[in-house]
Amino acid sequence: MAAVAAALANGEIASAKTLNTGRYASVYSEVQNSRLDHALSLPSVLKNPFLVVDGPLSSAAGNPDEIKKLFPCLFGQPSAVLVPGENAASGKVLKVGVVLSGGQAPGGHNVISGIFDYLQERCKGSTLYGFKGGPAGIMKCKYTILNTEYIYPYRNQGGFDMICSGRDKIETPDQFKQAEETVLKLDLDGLVVIGGDDSNTNACLLAENFRSKNMKTRVIGCPKTIDGDLKCKEVPTSFGFDTACKIYAEMIGNVMVDARSTGKYYHFVRLMGRAASHITLECALQTHPNITLIGEEVAAKKETLKNVTDYIADVICKRAERGYNYGVILIPEGLIDFIPEVQQLIAELNEILAHDVVDEVGHWKKKLLPQSLQLFELLPPAIQEQLMLERDPHGNVQVAKIETEKMLIQMVETELEHRKQAGAYKEQFKGQSHFFGYEGRCGLPSNFDATYCYALGYAAGALLHSGKTGLISSVGNLAAPVEEWTVGGTALTSLMDVERRHGKFKPVIKKAMVELEGAPFKKFASVREDWALNNRYLSPGPIQFVGPAANAVNHTLLLELGVDA
Amino acid sequence: MAAVAAALANGEIASAKTLNTGRYASVYSEVQNSRLDHALSLPSVLKNPFLVVDGPLSSAAGNPDEIKKLFPCLFGQPSAVLVPGENAASGKVLKVGVVLSGGQAPGGHNVISGIFDYLQERCKGSTLYGFKGGPAGIMKCKYTILNTEYIYPYRNQGGFDMICSGRDKIETPDQFKQAEETVLKLDLDGLVVIGGDDSNTNACLLAENFRSKNMKTRVIGCPKTIDGDLKCKEVPTSFGFDTACKIYAEMIGNVMVDARSTGKYYHFVRLMGRAASHITLECALQTHPNITLIGEEVAAKKETLKNVTDYIADVICKRAERGYNYGVILIPEGLIDFIPEVQQLIAELNEILAHDVVDEVGHWKKKLLPQSLQLFELLPPAIQEQLMLERDPHGNVQVAKIETEKMLIQMVETELEHRKQAGAYKEQFKGQSHFFGYEGRCGLPSNFDATYCYALGYAAGALLHSGKTGLISSVGNLAAPVEEWTVGGTALTSLMDVERRHGKFKPVIKKAMVELEGAPFKKFASVREDWALNNRYLSPGPIQFVGPAANAVNHTLLLELGVDA
Repeated sequence: MAAVAAALANGEIASAKTLNTGRYASVYSEVQNSRLDHALSLPSVLKNPFLVVDGPLSSAAGNPDEIKKLFPCLFGQPSAVLVPGENAASGKVLKVGVVLSGGQAPGGHNVISGIFDYLQERCKGSTLYGFKGGPAGIMKCKYTILNTEYIYPYRNQGGFDMICSGRDKIETPDQFKQAEETVLKLDLDGLVVIGGDDSNTNACLLAENFRSKNMKTRVIGCPKTIDGDLKCKEVPTSFGFDTACKIYAEMIGNVMVDARSTGKYYHFVRLMGRAASHITLECALQTHPNITLIGEEVAAKKETLKNVTDYIADVICKRAERGYNYGVILIPEGLIDFIPEVQQLIAELNEILAHDVVDEVGHWKKKLLPQSLQLFELLPPAIQEQLMLERDPHGNVQVAKIETEKMLIQMVETELEHRKQAGAYKEQFKGQSHFFGYEGRCGLPSNFDATYCYALGYAAGALLHSGKTGLISSVGNLAAPVEEWTVGGTALTSLMDVERRHGKFKPVIKKAMVELEGAPFKKFASVREDWALNNRYLSPGPIQFVGPAANAVNHTLLLELGVDA
Repeated sequence: MAAVAAALANGEIASAKTLNTGRYASVYSEVQNSRLDHALSLPSVLKNPFLVVDGPLSSAAGNPDEIKKLFPCLFGQPSAVLVPGENAASGKVLKVGVVLSGGQAPGGHNVISGIFDYLQERCKGSTLYGFKGGPAGIMKCKYTILNTEYIYPYRNQGGFDMICSGRDKIETPDQFKQAEETVLKLDLDGLVVIGGDDSNTNACLLAENFRSKNMKTRVIGCPKTIDGDLKCKEVPTSFGFDTACKIYAEMIGNVMVDARSTGKYYHFVRLMGRAASHITLECALQTHPNITLIGEEVAAKKETLKNVTDYIADVICKRAERGYNYGVILIPEGLIDFIPEVQQLIAELNEILAHDVVDEVGHWKKKLLPQSLQLFELLPPAIQEQLMLERDPHGNVQVAKIETEKMLIQMVETELEHRKQAGAYKEQFKGQSHFFGYEGRCGLPSNFDATYCYALGYAAGALLHSGKTGLISSVGNLAAPVEEWTVGGTALTSLMDVERRHGKFKPVIKKAMVELEGAPFKKFASVREDWALNNRYLSPGPIQFVGPAANAVNHTLLLELGVDA
């Protein structure tokens, strides 16, 4: 492989490649290069001959009767467990497709490497097709045949650019038809879908569809999302979460040291993660900020925006008494989606904007319910304007466009101004805003994510090889050394519930939210008062690939596995 | 030292410390801990007995006659060079003060460690006073005595929180008086000022003042600023630049991989560095973005905001023809300060805002010169509003508050809309904005900065020990192995020129701007067209402290030293 690396570095093999993204034409950085040959450990069970045996039969996360109707072939199937033993299937030659679906997450390339190596090592002569640009690549039959040379430069590298991703869904009967045509044309034995909750639901629908038509193509899912909200007992974490949180925590740690050194700024840091606040919670556990807002808690306590503002202002005032006029505050991207009164206001605004004239003087405001009007008047003018002006193609207010961290800075500033006038605060408040999102989705995978993804992919290959379908690749016991990790597959139907949409039941894998009774939140809740008033800042520093900290695992995962990190 | 580390980790020594920032009370991260005992190499000349010998006599960077009048005692003094030999002064006990001045930069703690270790090893029994909170600490005689236990937890750590920094200046006769009182009270033999161009000018004024009064206190400066704009032949770089650029480049590289993977966003990245564009240029050399704006070039070519917008739009259109509808654009924080027409507009706005009524209808705009009016109308409404509303305490427009990256996104969007209507562009432009600033000022110092700073501090100790004053610590030959680095001091007056302020000549160390004829810019200019249209992205990854990439030196420094990086 060193020869390939050298040729790559020299640009010699650039022209031999078909990929248009130009990755091959560029030279890698020293660190990227050093990662190419990073050796990945496999769980012991995958290093030796193994058998795939059935686990217990499964049900559904909710409404099993409805799930059974939606997945008549697959519902109730057992999970699969890999155990040492002689595999009867070994030697079979397979044709397998793989697709990346949805947003980027560090480690996607290693899942593909894992599938590829499995096929190379256990089913020599097999072919791996990489569908390009996400599920659209399946529907349009756009693919690349992935071979050793093609895959090599992506090993342990960030991004999804090996075959790129996309957000299309295979939903309509026509689209299912296209997918069938593609897998028939390529004579696929299997398909691996690397994606989040929606994509894995889609994977299961494909599996059901193929099975119901007696097609041979099996479908296996892999849990991907930096947001960390696709997980369950058998799938302890989604890949990418570890790396993304570590990248954000590096930046937060740096900002903390700056805050303490400078002594005059409050840094409001918004973090990616709209639906669930796992990233924010994990970054808090890694860095110990003064304030951390968790959307799920705000929702559970039915807090108002005023409550949130007051809480921040209270901490700032108490810190001022101790002589600390600086701090760091973490905010999940989806915060305001969790505040009931904001949802109410937005629903009313959508109605008004759709049907009424919005006059300059503000007569339209009389149409708002009193509590919504009160909230609207509380918002900084810039945010009011944003709510009125920025609409999506359906004319709806775009909550996603609101820069929550800036909004909170303005609201806290106003609140502190009131307190100043009342003599309850004497200092000068200065807010600095940050948003960390795109910076973390395509970083070089941490050693944990690199290894975890490789095992997920290798396991996906094994599951397909043994004829399994409708399972999500499941690698467990992650707090132990890699050798002791468990490997298997979990029935995707067992993760599902139904939602009623347009009068029909739709299957959904429920997003895993931050559990207020879960170990990570409880750990955080037990120390946050100390963090608020005293300074317990931790600066994790940049991700290291060698050395003592290189193999650290994130706190959320460890705490959920019962290890106090 | 391991015992101290353990005690620190256990929180056992927390209560023994006097620092209020709480650093000791917190536990370090694994990476922070691993850095505590990172061994620092010294240049050979500092590892053995050495002599300080005189170099050639010096002059000034400009107006030597005026500088001579301002520094009658110090003007013309020779530089100092350390050479192997027996030091007659060895053994003397010293009292030395140190102060951190201005903005944070990674490595400041190591300069202090270097001074401390010099005193410990070469002048046993000496005392090091750390003035707290910047130059104000000197004026108010607020200090901490720095001993082994106090310094240890800050070794190789980011931030300035060991003694904190401040932006006060010692300027008025009263303030000079206060400084004299402090150094007399503490009976200081020497003072080390760690700061940027202004702080080093201040250091030289102090040195001159003390010398003119026959006081024994010598003053030595150290070159600090992440902006990289304090440098000259003898001082090849300022500390912190290396680390900050590497942190920004990590984030830029991640964003690049994301851009390529996602294939639909143009990322506009604004980077800290208001006066000079060194950071932006260095980050470009490390990452190969599609577009890099260099303020000094924009100024030299007298470009307008329309020129800049058109250039970006041109590249976007050309890339669209190649099927690339994504990219990364780097923008120096001070960009618009470099655009002559913007300066003109702002000057006119300041006049109008000071003397005229700004009516809603916009009659006031008639007071603008035609070209300024044209520029004003070109600006996005949000920016127009910002210019009119946000003023500093003197009523002036606050250019610093303008989010240049967002302004450019809006202007490019408008321009591309025009081109679309004209049929010259068919794609959908989507901009994403980023600002990287505070994230880089307090990161863990790179191995280069850690070593360089330690040598700067050690050299400062040696210069004071040999009785030198008014010099800036100078460590050179930085492209060679550490052992071969040269060590000495450069007359601060030799870096100075004068500026006329309020009818008086003031000494200033001129900021080192990006030289359009310098090697870093020329290298960039020779490849930027290729970077623009093809994708040559490099992702440097997170700073590594061990391994092959750990000792990499930044491109700017290497290229300026004649090494093609």
